Amino acid sequence: MKRAKFEPTEAVLSGETTDIYFARTVEILCYEGLNPVATMEVFPSRAGMLCGIEEVKALLDKILPEDNREVWALDEGEEMERKEVVLRITAPYQSYGMYETPILGILAHCSGWATAARECVAAARGVPVISFGARHVHPSVAGIMDYSAMVGGCAGCSSVVGAKLWGIEPTGTIPHALIIIMGDTVKATIAFDKYMPPGVPRVALVDTFKDEAEESLRVAEALRDKLSSVRLDTPAERGRVTADLVKEVRARLDLAGFNKVKIFVSGGLDPERITYFLDSGAPVDGFGVGSYISGARPIDFTADLHEVEGKPIAKRGRIPGITPNPRLKRVM
Amino acid sequence: MKRAKFEPTEAVLSGETTDIYFARTVEILCYEGLNPVATMEVFPSRAGMLCGIEEVKALLDKILPEDNREVWALDEGEEMERKEVVLRITAPYQSYGMYETPILGILAHCSGWATAARECVAAARGVPVISFGARHVHPSVAGIMDYSAMVGGCAGCSSVVGAKLWGIEPTGTIPHALIIIMGDTVKATIAFDKYMPPGVPRVALVDTFKDEAEESLRVAEALRDKLSSVRLDTPAERGRVTADLVKEVRARLDLAGFNKVKIFVSGGLDPERITYFLDSGAPVDGFGVGSYISGARPIDFTADLHEVEGKPIAKRGRIPGITPNPRLKRVM
Amino acid sequence: MKRAKFEPTEAVLSGETTDIYFARTVEILCYEGLNPVATMEVFPSRAGMLCGIEEVKALLDKILPEDNREVWALDEGEEMERKEVVLRITAPYQSYGMYETPILGILAHCSGWATAARECVAAARGVPVISFGARHVHPSVAGIMDYSAMVGGCAGCSSVVGAKLWGIEPTGTIPHALIIIMGDTVKATIAFDKYMPPGVPRVALVDTFKDEAEESLRVAEALRDKLSSVRLDTPAERGRVTADLVKEVRARLDLAGFNKVKIFVSGGLDPERITYFLDSGAPVDGFGVGSYISGARPIDFTADLHEVEGKPIAKRGRIPGITPNPRLKRVM
Amino acid sequence: MKRAKFEPTEAVLSGETTDIYFARTVEILCYEGLNPVATMEVFPSRAGMLCGIEEVKALLDKILPEDNREVWALDEGEEMERKEVVLRITAPYQSYGMYETPILGILAHCSGWATAARECVAAARGVPVISFGARHVHPSVAGIMDYSAMVGGCAGCSSVVGAKLWGIEPTGTIPHALIIIMGDTVKATIAFDKYMPPGVPRVALVDTFKDEAEESLRVAEALRDKLSSVRLDTPAERGRVTADLVKEVRARLDLAGFNKVKIFVSGGLDPERITYFLDSGAPVDGFGVGSYISGARPIDFTADLHEVEGKPIAKRGRIPGITPNPRLKRVM
Amino acid sequence: MKRAKFEPTEAVLSGETTDIYFARTVEILCYEGLNPVATMEVFPSRAGMLCGIEEVKALLDKILPEDNREVWALDEGEEMERKEVVLRITAPYQSYGMYETPILGILAHCSGWATAARECVAAARGVPVISFGARHVHPSVAGIMDYSAMVGGCAGCSSVVGAKLWGIEPTGTIPHALIIIMGDTVKATIAFDKYMPPGVPRVALVDTFKDEAEESLRVAEALRDKLSSVRLDTPAERGRVTADLVKEVRARLDLAGFNKVKIFVSGGLDPERITYFLDSGAPVDGFGVGSYISGARPIDFTADLHEVEGKPIAKRGRIPGITPNPRLKRVM
Amino acid sequence: MKRAKFEPTEAVLSGETTDIYFARTVEILCYEGLNPVATMEVFPSRAGMLCGIEEVKALLDKILPEDNREVWALDEGEEMERKEVVLRITAPYQSYGMYETPILGILAHCSGWATAARECVAAARGVPVISFGARHVHPSVAGIMDYSAMVGGCAGCSSVVGAKLWGIEPTGTIPHALIIIMGDTVKATIAFDKYMPPGVPRVALVDTFKDEAEESLRVAEALRDKLSSVRLDTPAERGRVTADLVKEVRARLDLAGFNKVKIFVSGGLDPERITYFLDSGAPVDGFGVGSYISGARPIDFTADLHEVEGKPIAKRGRIPGITPNPRLKRVM
Repeated sequence: MKRAKFEPTEAVLSGETTDIYFARTVEILCYEGLNPVATMEVFPSRAGMLCGIEEVKALLDKILPEDNREVWALDEGEEMERKEVVLRITAPYQSYGMYETPILGILAHCSGWATAARECVAAARGVPVISFGARHVHPSVAGIMDYSAMVGGCAGCSSVVGAKLWGIEPTGTIPHALIIIMGDTVKATIAFDKYMPPGVPRVALVDTFKDEAEESLRVAEALRDKLSSVRLDTPAERGRVTADLVKEVRARLDLAGFNKVKIFVSGGLDPERITYFLDSGAPVDGFGVGSYISGARPIDFTADLHEVEGKPIAKRGRIPGITPNPRLKRVM
Repeated sequence: MKRAKFEPTEAVLSGETTDIYFARTVEILCYEGLNPVATMEVFPSRAGMLCGIEEVKALLDKILPEDNREVWALDEGEEMERKEVVLRITAPYQSYGMYETPILGILAHCSGWATAARECVAAARGVPVISFGARHVHPSVAGIMDYSAMVGGCAGCSSVVGAKLWGIEPTGTIPHALIIIMGDTVKATIAFDKYMPPGVPRVALVDTFKDEAEESLRVAEALRDKLSSVRLDTPAERGRVTADLVKEVRARLDLAGFNKVKIFVSGGLDPERITYFLDSGAPVDGFGVGSYISGARPIDFTADLHEVEGKPIAKRGRIPGITPNPRLKRVM
Repeated sequence: MKRAKFEPTEAVLSGETTDIYFARTVEILCYEGLNPVATMEVFPSRAGMLCGIEEVKALLDKILPEDNREVWALDEGEEMERKEVVLRITAPYQSYGMYETPILGILAHCSGWATAARECVAAARGVPVISFGARHVHPSVAGIMDYSAMVGGCAGCSSVVGAKLWGIEPTGTIPHALIIIMGDTVKATIAFDKYMPPGVPRVALVDTFKDEAEESLRVAEALRDKLSSVRLDTPAERGRVTADLVKEVRARLDLAGFNKVKIFVSGGLDPERITYFLDSGAPVDGFGVGSYISGARPIDFTADLHEVEGKPIAKRGRIPGITPNPRLKRVM
Repeated sequence: MKRAKFEPTEAVLSGETTDIYFARTVEILCYEGLNPVATMEVFPSRAGMLCGIEEVKALLDKILPEDNREVWALDEGEEMERKEVVLRITAPYQSYGMYETPILGILAHCSGWATAARECVAAARGVPVISFGARHVHPSVAGIMDYSAMVGGCAGCSSVVGAKLWGIEPTGTIPHALIIIMGDTVKATIAFDKYMPPGVPRVALVDTFKDEAEESLRVAEALRDKLSSVRLDTPAERGRVTADLVKEVRARLDLAGFNKVKIFVSGGLDPERITYFLDSGAPVDGFGVGSYISGARPIDFTADLHEVEGKPIAKRGRIPGITPNPRLKRVM
Repeated sequence: MKRAKFEPTEAVLSGETTDIYFARTVEILCYEGLNPVATMEVFPSRAGMLCGIEEVKALLDKILPEDNREVWALDEGEEMERKEVVLRITAPYQSYGMYETPILGILAHCSGWATAARECVAAARGVPVISFGARHVHPSVAGIMDYSAMVGGCAGCSSVVGAKLWGIEPTGTIPHALIIIMGDTVKATIAFDKYMPPGVPRVALVDTFKDEAEESLRVAEALRDKLSSVRLDTPAERGRVTADLVKEVRARLDLAGFNKVKIFVSGGLDPERITYFLDSGAPVDGFGVGSYISGARPIDFTADLHEVEGKPIAKRGRIPGITPNPRLKRVM
Repeated sequence: MKRAKFEPTEAVLSGETTDIYFARTVEILCYEGLNPVATMEVFPSRAGMLCGIEEVKALLDKILPEDNREVWALDEGEEMERKEVVLRITAPYQSYGMYETPILGILAHCSGWATAARECVAAARGVPVISFGARHVHPSVAGIMDYSAMVGGCAGCSSVVGAKLWGIEPTGTIPHALIIIMGDTVKATIAFDKYMPPGVPRVALVDTFKDEAEESLRVAEALRDKLSSVRLDTPAERGRVTADLVKEVRARLDLAGFNKVKIFVSGGLDPERITYFLDSGAPVDGFGVGSYISGARPIDFTADLHEVEGKPIAKRGRIPGITPNPRLKRVM
């Protein structure tokens, strides 16, 4: 599959998603006949990974006059420092003034997600991390959230729309619901195996009804070579997944000859907990991370005018004139 | 204006925004010919204010068979305890199984926003709080974020789309950009006054170029009775807005006879900082809150099957059977 | 059964268990022909429950001259303050000087155990606490440790020798070893039921091979009315016993009609953890406490001479003369 | 003197000091005719110094069938890691099942004492440490406690029975009691010197009636070359022994020509306080440690069956089969 | 004796002790012919006890024109709030502008001392506190420091000059130096008694050469009824004075019939330590406090012009116009 | 100018500033006919910079008999360790006994000031530090305080008397008072420039009425090349001076061509805050430090007799005899 192209929505283009005072500003300037070429610089309030700039560029391409614009930016997925300028727009102010809100919003939300994902990926030291958090965000951003997680280094994501944006197949196992409805883990796993296309890996969820170690051996014996992995997702009420549990399940699977079955862990994971598993020597083959990524705080961005008609200017608290940043590349 | 009605989008209805494994589950059950009436209960991982349930009900109304459904829920804006059941659906599982992801996502994100808003509103002890945070979230959720802030008790919001959803006019002042382009706060405020309809309150932003107290007096003398408020938004580089600054501006305005001009504060506000202003006796007339509300962590929700075909069941760690909650109301 | 009587051992009487310098002191005084009537007072270094005084009295009765002795003491099991005099001996010094070490040692160790037991009992708010810690102390003190735990309020103890000292039957369930050797929890429980006298309660240990909830139902169905309790002892590797687990096992037993089967919890318990269970509303019917009681720090005691031949005296740092304590009773 | 040999007591051999459920287990297995060869592994819950293994070996030698046993263990006094297997027994289960309690209890208590002693010895950087804590434990374990302290590296101990077990002479000075009865430190020290055999070092306790520095000079002048050391034991009421006091007493003794008189410190010592003295440069020649060693928490040990009749097995939470540990030596 | 009157020194009147820029300011205004009546308000940076205002008033009386001045102030020794106006001067600015530095300096230093003294006095709950800290400040302020301590509630002070300022006799005992030179505490105390006038209380310092309890008894027996008190001043090297030491000395004095001899404590005292003695029940009859009072941080004061020629004015950060404070009294 | 010479005041020489008990001691010794040659050693209670020794030497020179004295000391401004002997006097005790109080007081106060100054100077890494704290101490010590600050490394001081002692011109800018009376910063700065001698640097205070950046540009444009620096002193009510403010003022001055105008910062500075400015890269050209230096806690000093007539002696807690310190130089 191919990565999808960003396309500004009508709601954004119409100014509906903006703060009302930017709409009013453009209206007033219009009445006053003022449309100076102005330079706006955008910077984050804390360090992190820049994400959303592709979507922002798609918007700018649509709204800035082609013959009178200059846009400099960092790339999608680049690291950025606190207060580093990551985007600089020079164009007639009326063409873009109204879009300050969505431009900042896209960067804030996406960079927050990507930064959190990258923290998990860094903690996982090469073990794949899958983004499982669509269930913790509004469906209107489920796709862009998973896209941002992929920018942050995740190896896969569970939402259909996110996978489509990034151009991959979505990743998933078997939910507790299927097992509960079918009444038995082994039965549910066999059904999954029966109907799903051969390309979909068989990953059994093993904490629904029985002890995880016992259930792992049962599904392994039922599917044998076809079983790709077991997923441990023990709820907090049962003490969550522990490093010792992973080691024991590994040992019991090996003792029974299932050395090839992988172990996948999920449930309340964050960088600290991922580190705990790896530092304890637990042989985890994959981590499923949910709300640590999808519920990450957006990274606030600020936009400031620094030049109007070529003259340095700035509000109190800011330095007038262009802020030098050699890392910026001209993108428009 | 009238409050807008929620309408599920095509992306949600098509299952695109769901986790892939729920789509697969329904597919497998379909092949197996299994479609039992199942009861799913939904509860939050921490206490807060329930929000999003109206949007969820609009979705359920579309997907559940009218003749075989029973839905119980708390109301939009009700307080909920940790692990309290806030939604209970009884219907054929195939009709709703695929929508677990968006249902949880809507509740998680909206309840997170509403809960943060309510904390600010509580801290403000009757002083109006305006939601200013659209610039910190992706534009696809700017509207529903501001809607949630209103559920949480805000007195207004700045995004056009949020205001439309809640059925009010959006609230806004003058951004720094207009002042910078016009080169002077008084000039910008006069232009605003000239072109904006009479119903829009004249709120001058007074920290752009000059000392806030000096600028307040200048705009008050320029607009006199027409000036509704001044907004203090001093940046961190200049020590942020302090309680003493508010008191001083108030004193200087009063000394000059502008007792009716209100003082509006914004910039990095959260419940702790709102409390600091009020505990210090600063005469604030309104608070503009941004990322504390819009960047609030979603409240994770969990959905569990508790009955299948009338028989109590549950995965390990959960209690089988219906969880009693007398606060639930039947909504379908 | 009747409570056992304390009897000083030959090792204690011979002075073998004393510090060498007390033996030498008595030797020197003997050579010098000095044997004044001296008053020694004993006090603890921290507050707690006095225990061991019965064993000390049995020793004093043996060594002090019947016609020239006066002993005042608090009772076994009484609360004592930090530095409160709990024992006062007036007699010819040569008769008891050599026994300062064992007198203090008995009080220190026993009071440490009793105080820890009482803390657990207080935390348990009426739910029975059983002393399970014999395995964490040297067998030479296993009995006196369990005796002290009983003084501290425990409802039973597991060591044969401790139960004998206190005059009760020892308490026990089924160890993991029996289940592992018989290969199945149900099989082991049935064997236990088959051979044990009817008076011994049938308490099944349910965390050896399978999920605790599943195993509880299996043994309940096997023994039905004969099953007295299940014991949850989940190891740390599996997240320890949680309050939620207790609630779930209770619910699943009740759902299956086994309302009379009690739930007994053990594994790393201390007052804090007992409080956690009760504060969480977990329906525990008994707590088995091990090393918190048996490994309790002894409470250091100090002995000081305060009068010699009726004249007040004391070393630096202490007040000369009898220290008044109206709570003391004359016991000899 | 020769080190004493351990000999299991009748109370231990009869099973009286065991937990009742092990006695019952063996009874049931006997009725069932089950006596499989089983492998039990023993490991500690925290790192420390292994102690008690000699006493355990003496017990095992008595109870295991000579022709069907295999025992592997670490040596007395070896360092052990948390969860490291320190003892592995393979033999018919009925022969040793009942002794799990005393085996674990011996190791727990002795290893706790030895580990605490070793911490003090390490802190003392070569300055001798004497175990003075018999007065804080029950006389039934005073001997084995001092034995464990010697295993931990102490240079001597005060209890007669402990010294006998280790094959040395006990160590002691003069107690406050002798001085109080004789009415003067110098008088008491002279009497000690008069009656004690020449081999016993003359150590004067110098804090009973007068300032320590003054008293040190008085006893030094009275005994001159015969004085081996002074012991400082200032009570907490007088500010405890301080590093400055040691330095001053040293300086005043030297000034008066008593460079050879050593200074011995006691009273509430632990590794932190020993370190304080040495880091402050106090010229201490010996430390007397009491309850830090004798009141040390036992180190909990756990015993698990890992093979039955040659087949790997384990309860939930443990890895089935022999746990490899190349440090173990075969001892039986 | 009578309290001394304050008299401004020549150094202060000449402007020598002022900051150079105030001298320059008055010079410039003089050249410009500007001498408006201006109102200056003075407030502290933290709460405390006002002290020094008498000395300030003596200065103002000298410099302000009698026919054109209005001065309002709080009284010496009154409590003041943070930022409360404690002094308000209205007069031609040239008359007092140059004295801002010494006015603030006097209030800062004196209020710091008085506030610290009052904290000790409050902690002492009626037990007399003597100011002993002259040795920790420059002799140029030894007198005014002790004066401030008296304002703060002390019952006496040790410096001759401070006592003269306050109109009392200075308080003192015997220093270590006298005892060391005479070679014995008893000898020094007898000499003191021999030569000092009968009105001077005999207070023996009892920690120089011997144990405090022993020395107390020696001096009590030597001076009998003439001994007023003993002073305990044990150095840190010997564990400082402890509550237990006070109790023991009391008990031993009483036992010997010296119930009338008082106990005076000194050495590193502060409110926390005074509280410790009283909470521990130590029968202290007087506290000697040194550097806690004399080394107290000055309380910074600020002076602001609030009216010039009757018109409200103020620098940024301050409220223009007179700050109302009903507690102020007109003093000039 | 030349550094001033110290001269003991009459108040000190007369013994008025001493503790009464030293006066009495000398009186008693006189009556007893005791005037031994005694050695007194003086040491500080904490490490720091020695200051005041010059003033002490001037006093000793006056009081010690020229033919029978030996004085060793460290130099003014040398670093000293905790408890290091910094002054040793050997002379007939009556000649100096009465001056123990002022000797210790001079060293305590001056060393406290110098040590605090040196901490600021060290933090400032070569940027000049000016002592501005005269306003926070009593005028009687304003001069010696500023002298001590100069010893500590300050580049200047504001009090006339302090500058005279050190032999320099005092340093100062323009106070808020002048600006308020003249009604405008520019007007006041012009007046300053008009009347002050050319050697006095023109330093404008720029936070009185307007925004600091705006005011800086106004005064720079008014005085142009004559303006030496601007001083930022923003009050806490306006968020204090921040590193960002310094950078912005620098940038705006540079943009307007005033690269030569320096920036001077004052207001609540201490080493931590100075470090914050420099670590943030703020281009500060000078720091004005007030109460951190002038309000510094004195460093307590202690004086002990260590020899009397050549014989080692000491009170309890101290080592008898001369304390070796090779760093001492003979000064008398």
